[in-house]
Amino acid sequence: MKADATTEQIEHMAQHITSLGLTPQVIHGTHQTVIAAIGEERPGLTEVLEPGPGVEKVLPIMAPYKRASSELKRERTVVKARGLEVGGNRVALIAGPCSVESEEQIVNLARKVKALGATGLRGGAFKPRTSPYSFQGHKELGLKMLATARAETGLAIVTEVMAPEHVPMVAEYADVLQIGARNMQNYQLLQAVGDSGKPALLKRGMSASIDEFLLAAEYILDRGNPHVMLCERGIRTYEDHTRFTLPLATVPYLHDKSHLPVVVDPSHGTGKAKLVIPMSRAAIAAGADALILEVHDDPEHAVSDGAQTITPAAFGELVAQCRRIAEAMDRAL
Amino acid sequence: MKADATTEQIEHMAQHITSLGLTPQVIHGTHQTVIAAIGEERPGLTEVLEPGPGVEKVLPIMAPYKRASSELKRERTVVKARGLEVGGNRVALIAGPCSVESEEQIVNLARKVKALGATGLRGGAFKPRTSPYSFQGHKELGLKMLATARAETGLAIVTEVMAPEHVPMVAEYADVLQIGARNMQNYQLLQAVGDSGKPALLKRGMSASIDEFLLAAEYILDRGNPHVMLCERGIRTYEDHTRFTLPLATVPYLHDKSHLPVVVDPSHGTGKAKLVIPMSRAAIAAGADALILEVHDDPEHAVSDGAQTITPAAFGELVAQCRRIAEAMDRAL
Amino acid sequence: MKADATTEQIEHMAQHITSLGLTPQVIHGTHQTVIAAIGEERPGLTEVLEPGPGVEKVLPIMAPYKRASSELKRERTVVKARGLEVGGNRVALIAGPCSVESEEQIVNLARKVKALGATGLRGGAFKPRTSPYSFQGHKELGLKMLATARAETGLAIVTEVMAPEHVPMVAEYADVLQIGARNMQNYQLLQAVGDSGKPALLKRGMSASIDEFLLAAEYILDRGNPHVMLCERGIRTYEDHTRFTLPLATVPYLHDKSHLPVVVDPSHGTGKAKLVIPMSRAAIAAGADALILEVHDDPEHAVSDGAQTITPAAFGELVAQCRRIAEAMDRAL
Amino acid sequence: MKADATTEQIEHMAQHITSLGLTPQVIHGTHQTVIAAIGEERPGLTEVLEPGPGVEKVLPIMAPYKRASSELKRERTVVKARGLEVGGNRVALIAGPCSVESEEQIVNLARKVKALGATGLRGGAFKPRTSPYSFQGHKELGLKMLATARAETGLAIVTEVMAPEHVPMVAEYADVLQIGARNMQNYQLLQAVGDSGKPALLKRGMSASIDEFLLAAEYILDRGNPHVMLCERGIRTYEDHTRFTLPLATVPYLHDKSHLPVVVDPSHGTGKAKLVIPMSRAAIAAGADALILEVHDDPEHAVSDGAQTITPAAFGELVAQCRRIAEAMDRAL
Repeated sequence: MKADATTEQIEHMAQHITSLGLTPQVIHGTHQTVIAAIGEERPGLTEVLEPGPGVEKVLPIMAPYKRASSELKRERTVVKARGLEVGGNRVALIAGPCSVESEEQIVNLARKVKALGATGLRGGAFKPRTSPYSFQGHKELGLKMLATARAETGLAIVTEVMAPEHVPMVAEYADVLQIGARNMQNYQLLQAVGDSGKPALLKRGMSASIDEFLLAAEYILDRGNPHVMLCERGIRTYEDHTRFTLPLATVPYLHDKSHLPVVVDPSHGTGKAKLVIPMSRAAIAAGADALILEVHDDPEHAVSDGAQTITPAAFGELVAQCRRIAEAMDRAL
Repeated sequence: MKADATTEQIEHMAQHITSLGLTPQVIHGTHQTVIAAIGEERPGLTEVLEPGPGVEKVLPIMAPYKRASSELKRERTVVKARGLEVGGNRVALIAGPCSVESEEQIVNLARKVKALGATGLRGGAFKPRTSPYSFQGHKELGLKMLATARAETGLAIVTEVMAPEHVPMVAEYADVLQIGARNMQNYQLLQAVGDSGKPALLKRGMSASIDEFLLAAEYILDRGNPHVMLCERGIRTYEDHTRFTLPLATVPYLHDKSHLPVVVDPSHGTGKAKLVIPMSRAAIAAGADALILEVHDDPEHAVSDGAQTITPAAFGELVAQCRRIAEAMDRAL
Repeated sequence: MKADATTEQIEHMAQHITSLGLTPQVIHGTHQTVIAAIGEERPGLTEVLEPGPGVEKVLPIMAPYKRASSELKRERTVVKARGLEVGGNRVALIAGPCSVESEEQIVNLARKVKALGATGLRGGAFKPRTSPYSFQGHKELGLKMLATARAETGLAIVTEVMAPEHVPMVAEYADVLQIGARNMQNYQLLQAVGDSGKPALLKRGMSASIDEFLLAAEYILDRGNPHVMLCERGIRTYEDHTRFTLPLATVPYLHDKSHLPVVVDPSHGTGKAKLVIPMSRAAIAAGADALILEVHDDPEHAVSDGAQTITPAAFGELVAQCRRIAEAMDRAL
Repeated sequence: MKADATTEQIEHMAQHITSLGLTPQVIHGTHQTVIAAIGEERPGLTEVLEPGPGVEKVLPIMAPYKRASSELKRERTVVKARGLEVGGNRVALIAGPCSVESEEQIVNLARKVKALGATGLRGGAFKPRTSPYSFQGHKELGLKMLATARAETGLAIVTEVMAPEHVPMVAEYADVLQIGARNMQNYQLLQAVGDSGKPALLKRGMSASIDEFLLAAEYILDRGNPHVMLCERGIRTYEDHTRFTLPLATVPYLHDKSHLPVVVDPSHGTGKAKLVIPMSRAAIAAGADALILEVHDDPEHAVSDGAQTITPAAFGELVAQCRRIAEAMDRAL
């Protein structure tokens, strides 16, 4: 309550709290009075109480997510899709082009990244693009190309789904449904992915808080789908020498708060090919369970995201360096 | 090009530019060489050129949006929906509760805000909520309540649509389709709203750049729907004394770059009822074409967003103060 | 306390709070226990308590500033320096070039801005520049030029002081000591300006929170100098179409929390001459007590900050428009 | 130039560029004309040209820093102060309390961190504090305590200097002068530290761009002092689950652009003791040349920064884990 809140206002708020099914406890401080509202936490309570008379501010004490919380489930979740396992001792690698361009391209790249250690193949068939005039992906044709690449290599297919009505189609071809950063709070999409039961790779929104991120995961978990991977892909800050700012403290922080595995995307997280290898090493040293990386035979001619894409040769170098870091942490890669 | 780019690299990039259908012009500076790429701008070009050998950085010169640009269409757009006109001399007011709670509530509020000068009625039937456990809106039932309020008052209904498959249903009841900040880059939704032909109120994403905002509008315009209003509703910054940071310079900046009308949302933009009136005045002084405001008979008991909601009495005071500001700018309200 | 905090940990923290001279009050919630620490607030307490065993987080309830607070002193402060009065009914205008370039320039400009309504003359003699190779100002010579301009016009001189050891010299010539955004937390400088007893114009740091801003003012006030103006000059965010983001909600928020007058700098706050007039109008509509503006006869040839500088003609237009806004708020200008 | 710039405006700007001693080169694009200004880069040129008639924007091509640039000096700088070497193969550790509290405390801690592998001892004698009511450090007495700790252990003393007039005194006791984040653009202080000739540890401002950071280093280098270490300590973003956001991509980016060694501060960079070890590992994996860490025997009773301070036992664990990471990169620690 405010320093000058009246006895009537304090009384009023205590009754308001009672009327909401909670137990108020009034604490008289030296300068201010605080009312604790005791009971089951409910979303929206802050909003309901804040406009009350004499109220200074409302401070929630409990975390708003439940199913994603490590308090509810202490055992760590391992998400599995074919040979791709994320959350166990082995650090997983998901690699591939930004966009699926042709069957030849994707099959060829799939073979290369598999030979170098990847167990997941990324590649966009539906591409969310800032401009309506940019290449929007090969859509179902692209999904078929990915399926061919899987048939050839056995890699698990990780690909983005952009709309609830596409979920059944994408789920038919893909092993992991990726929800992009722009769609992290597209709740219809989250629910549709939840309903599909398919493993999901949920990217953090570029200005999402950790609570919002975990609540987005909660939308999927709440539909009975426990196969959720959280992916840190960089946030938007004032920094302009990188495309986004990649905050790796997210990795140990999420591991503390949640049982879900954490993936890092150093390609989008930096936007610069030159920074991808050092930030991949750093992500693993921070404890990441997997990396997702943009790899292309000829980044200079990639139809999208060339600036942050590395070649298969650089990917090989990345794997060699990251394996040493993983081993220094008693993990495999 | 980098300071140490070789002649071969410069030659290579010039040829690359030619192969893309553009005309390269090489400029030899004292320390560095710059290659200008002349021709029609195309999205994605920066990405394609940036990974080239010897390239330091690629700087686009032209704006990436076309239909939203004031260069293409100099005459200002006025969006009309019943008595609501946004973009003309008169500053419009769209007011109503965060969520439609009951028919009685919405009809009652509609009458009050109409009597005070509003020409649009806002109210959420589909509510995007951070938590899956929060109230998600009355959905179609809420739309029907809004339609009743319209029948009673003639106010234009402004309500959010959250998924492409809901567009036909929402469009049946609403006069203006609102696209929320979290969905600003939900491209399927933008296209569906574009296809509906209905007036659209597009909210700026909470970390969207102005270019991204105008390109999102471009998605709607590109489907042949010219009735787009741009709404500044606050961005996410490090500031924590307000819910978001409301950057009013967006208003004159958008008016310079685009012909589309600009709406400001001081309720979400501040998150605090106490700041809504001064920021409404400021928005109009900055040139806003309309305000969208959360008004509720009893903010303390509103099911959502109570902290930033004002009472009808405060709304009356707001109208009185804002009218004087509008008149000081030779506008009506 | 954490959900799994033990009785021993709760006991330990309660004793720790007692040992700090505060009274602990233990509140047993449904899932968590909260300990309220009652007593005089002291800085640093959060830090001291947070690492304790079983502690989840520490939430301070009281504002950390005292002398700047409107709770301590309800009467609004008016800062006066010659004809410049900031904080009363009349909105004040402080105008002038970014840098003092020559005596002729500054005297000439002073006459022009005075004729148009300014009561304060800004002009940099000591210039904080990002690069050591940029023009650093005419220093004491510049101060003498400002003094000449004052002798000719009677305008109050507002100029920046950059180091504690310069305070006596600058105070000899200036009427108001400006502390720049980069120095908002240069505590030696704040104390030296406090000790000088001169009116101070304190600019908000470009990433300062409001609490940090008011605590910086507190450093000046705490030395017995009550003549402090707070200046919002824009914050650093991800936005890149303006030089900074100008968050005008700061104005009513500061007016609520503090009795100190609030100045707005639309020149630095936007970085674009074209946005200065609309944002000046908006600042006054938000309740600003004064504007500080960069005005130059020939912005194209100004030695610094040309892009955000307006001409005397534009300043005249600004005054005419802003006067109408001020009048619409029952204030003069 | 703008799309509608006239021939006269283009001509005018070309002459303006010539009058500034540069060579203009006019490029006629399909929709817009661009003028390249060729010659020595000079600071402030953007500002001078931007307000010109018909000018759309000015884009600088060259980096504004010189002495800090890896283009000027390719050989990496190694900064040495007693046994502390930063920038060579061995990753250095600087550890100690936030504040020097007593001689016994600092000597005791110095022995412990030395035994565990540190070669530098940090400890604040002058403390920049947000509130004037917080503990401000033991000042010269604290410096003497640090000197005693050095006499006992041989560790190099790293301590903050807050004002130009304190530089001689602090330089008398310290081996490395630390410039805090709040003072990164306190130019008088940078120059005084430059003049001292002492090794400097320059912390990045909490909202500084990389260019601003390197230009701050340039202020020191420009006074003839080449012994500069750059320290990433976290930036201010919208994230609130950590005290700051620690952007490790800064490390490889600075290594690419500059020859100066890079230090990381995971204590301030996260603000949480629990995150210090994983982010220390990640910093080394990203290529950091040294870590600076807050270590205290009893963080719960530290006079400042307890929440982010680790115990000597945790520091020992940190060293063990980080040594393995360093070795995985063929470096020692």
